[in-house]
Amino acid sequence: MEQTLEQKLEQAVWVAHSLFERGRTAGSSANMSFCHEGRIYITASGSCFGTLGAEDFAAITMEGKPLGEQKPSKEWPLHLALYEKSPEIGAVLHTHSCYAVLWSFVPGLPEQDCIPDHTPYLKMKLGTVGTVPYEKPGSQALFDAFRQRVEQSDGFLLKNHGPVVPGKDMMDAFYCLEELEESARIAWELFRAGL
Amino acid sequence: MEQTLEQKLEQAVWVAHSLFERGRTAGSSANMSFCHEGRIYITASGSCFGTLGAEDFAAITMEGKPLGEQKPSKEWPLHLALYEKSPEIGAVLHTHSCYAVLWSFVPGLPEQDCIPDHTPYLKMKLGTVGTVPYEKPGSQALFDAFRQRVEQSDGFLLKNHGPVVPGKDMMDAFYCLEELEESARIAWELFRAGL
Amino acid sequence: MEQTLEQKLEQAVWVAHSLFERGRTAGSSANMSFCHEGRIYITASGSCFGTLGAEDFAAITMEGKPLGEQKPSKEWPLHLALYEKSPEIGAVLHTHSCYAVLWSFVPGLPEQDCIPDHTPYLKMKLGTVGTVPYEKPGSQALFDAFRQRVEQSDGFLLKNHGPVVPGKDMMDAFYCLEELEESARIAWELFRAGL
Amino acid sequence: MEQTLEQKLEQAVWVAHSLFERGRTAGSSANMSFCHEGRIYITASGSCFGTLGAEDFAAITMEGKPLGEQKPSKEWPLHLALYEKSPEIGAVLHTHSCYAVLWSFVPGLPEQDCIPDHTPYLKMKLGTVGTVPYEKPGSQALFDAFRQRVEQSDGFLLKNHGPVVPGKDMMDAFYCLEELEESARIAWELFRAGL
Repeated sequence: MEQTLEQKLEQAVWVAHSLFERGRTAGSSANMSFCHEGRIYITASGSCFGTLGAEDFAAITMEGKPLGEQKPSKEWPLHLALYEKSPEIGAVLHTHSCYAVLWSFVPGLPEQDCIPDHTPYLKMKLGTVGTVPYEKPGSQALFDAFRQRVEQSDGFLLKNHGPVVPGKDMMDAFYCLEELEESARIAWELFRAGL
Repeated sequence: MEQTLEQKLEQAVWVAHSLFERGRTAGSSANMSFCHEGRIYITASGSCFGTLGAEDFAAITMEGKPLGEQKPSKEWPLHLALYEKSPEIGAVLHTHSCYAVLWSFVPGLPEQDCIPDHTPYLKMKLGTVGTVPYEKPGSQALFDAFRQRVEQSDGFLLKNHGPVVPGKDMMDAFYCLEELEESARIAWELFRAGL
Repeated sequence: MEQTLEQKLEQAVWVAHSLFERGRTAGSSANMSFCHEGRIYITASGSCFGTLGAEDFAAITMEGKPLGEQKPSKEWPLHLALYEKSPEIGAVLHTHSCYAVLWSFVPGLPEQDCIPDHTPYLKMKLGTVGTVPYEKPGSQALFDAFRQRVEQSDGFLLKNHGPVVPGKDMMDAFYCLEELEESARIAWELFRAGL
Repeated sequence: MEQTLEQKLEQAVWVAHSLFERGRTAGSSANMSFCHEGRIYITASGSCFGTLGAEDFAAITMEGKPLGEQKPSKEWPLHLALYEKSPEIGAVLHTHSCYAVLWSFVPGLPEQDCIPDHTPYLKMKLGTVGTVPYEKPGSQALFDAFRQRVEQSDGFLLKNHGPVVPGKDMMDAFYCLEELEESARIAWELFRAGL
């Protein structure tokens, strides 16, 4: 029943291409990871979701130690913090999706549940989304700010940066990210319309 | 002249992929069905329009009884209510298309014909679109609210949720959904512009 | 140097798919035609740019008489009016592209040159775009209104309906339509921003 | 380690198709170039990023003299000005991306750094983006205005026209253009929202 490494890589590559081609992420800014037999497979530093292949994943230990020649995304500590939170988390997705980023600029967002329930699907699929204050991408300050909040919400919105969402597996993380971006889009449009 | 099951499945899969790739629906939130030889073929619970294949359809009787191992979408009663309305309905599409959802938040929509005729195509292709008050997705309350209104309009907009449209066949339902979403987009943009 | 019928059909099918997949048109609402050896090849009634194939073209004479079994788009008189205007016109495209349609609702548009020159490309590629008052799609009143204005502008925007553009060949008409829609989008966004 | 001409052409074609299919450019308005063994390979005059193939590149000398039968894009002097600026520049991309164009209409933009740092990525990836006053596309006045500013910023936004960005290689230029357009989109949306 458990998927093979090849199946997980194939699914991850489909998710990356789909997010890129439908405008959910752009350029080389996103990263993703999944667990397999006690290791984390994470996209390599500088990789692009539009051209991603199975060879663009770096293997690291559950402590973040590189196991091969590929250099992992510098944002691996965000992924690790989620895997340490719960053994039920098997995949993590991070993008710079436009509406989630825009929503992070709205003043006065609730810290542990920042996206309004205009439709019920985000809560049904992922749960709450907490904000993480802005810190330089890849900095220890960002990783510390993330770890301090990792128990308080189900998904996360890094301010001026983008969403980080966990899932049981990659497709589950993908569905959660899709609902987060759609919910942020609806929230943004209704906010702009004064509704 | 009547299409074979294989032809209908192939057409349904094309429609699902096309809606997903062009941003008309996202994640795993949409569902679709069609009739063939006295049975309903409906997308399985949890399926994704982006990865949908012919194997992702569950067969049910016209009374909603599952016939195979696939578990049908929990929203099958919405589909059934339309097939019971008229023998000319051969397919049903339900999505969470963004502009239709946004339009459902506009105050004071007419209950039986909620999308303005800025262009003539929605009326020419589908007819009227009625609103259905918000109830929890998949709940009996939603199914009851839908059935109470099913005779009063040609297509439907579930508030805070998304459109449900019938068609003679899947391509016809697809054209109707396309006009509904385009019309909702034009209505939303003109409403925002005060025109 | 002159293209064969097969080359022209292949190019037309690429243009149709590209317009559909990139959201320039939706459902079954667009139509297109080109000239070849004294005949007009026009998309058949009810065809969809997303599924269009070379077999979905109907041949008609330069007077509009059908030559095969395919029924031509009911909007063929719009195409004919452009071919009669000039022997240099070899292709015509008509869509319901969203920003062009939105722009047609702006009050006080100049009748013979309705899209502002915020950028220079539309004028460089196509020329002026005139408005055509709303009349029922496919009606004689629409065809008459179109013919009355066909000499006064280079491209046309049917109000509450969509653009009609000519080109030397299909790729030229495609480039003109692309500039028209991009220019309408920029005009609409700047109008909304008060710039 | 250095890529072959075939590899560079293949990468350039991927970038062109990806930009076109995801709506970053439209019609026949974009152009791109890269260096290889002391020559510049630039897209031919009138080519379309949607249909671009390896045969649609014209070779020119580092002084702009055509070397083959293909006629280079008339905007080749913009490309040349960047290659002369630094030997580290190996590729140049120019598009009419919508949000960058819209942003160029905002009054009072800083001349040497016109896109606000709402998110940190544009500065991290490309650096500053300077404005270039409007001059007719392809005119000597435009080329002169560009050369006068080429040392003052890292990337450029031609007013009422579009961005020009350099990169070490084509993928690097692509990532820079992606960040520029995403940053312009966020800047535009926040400007419109008064945030």
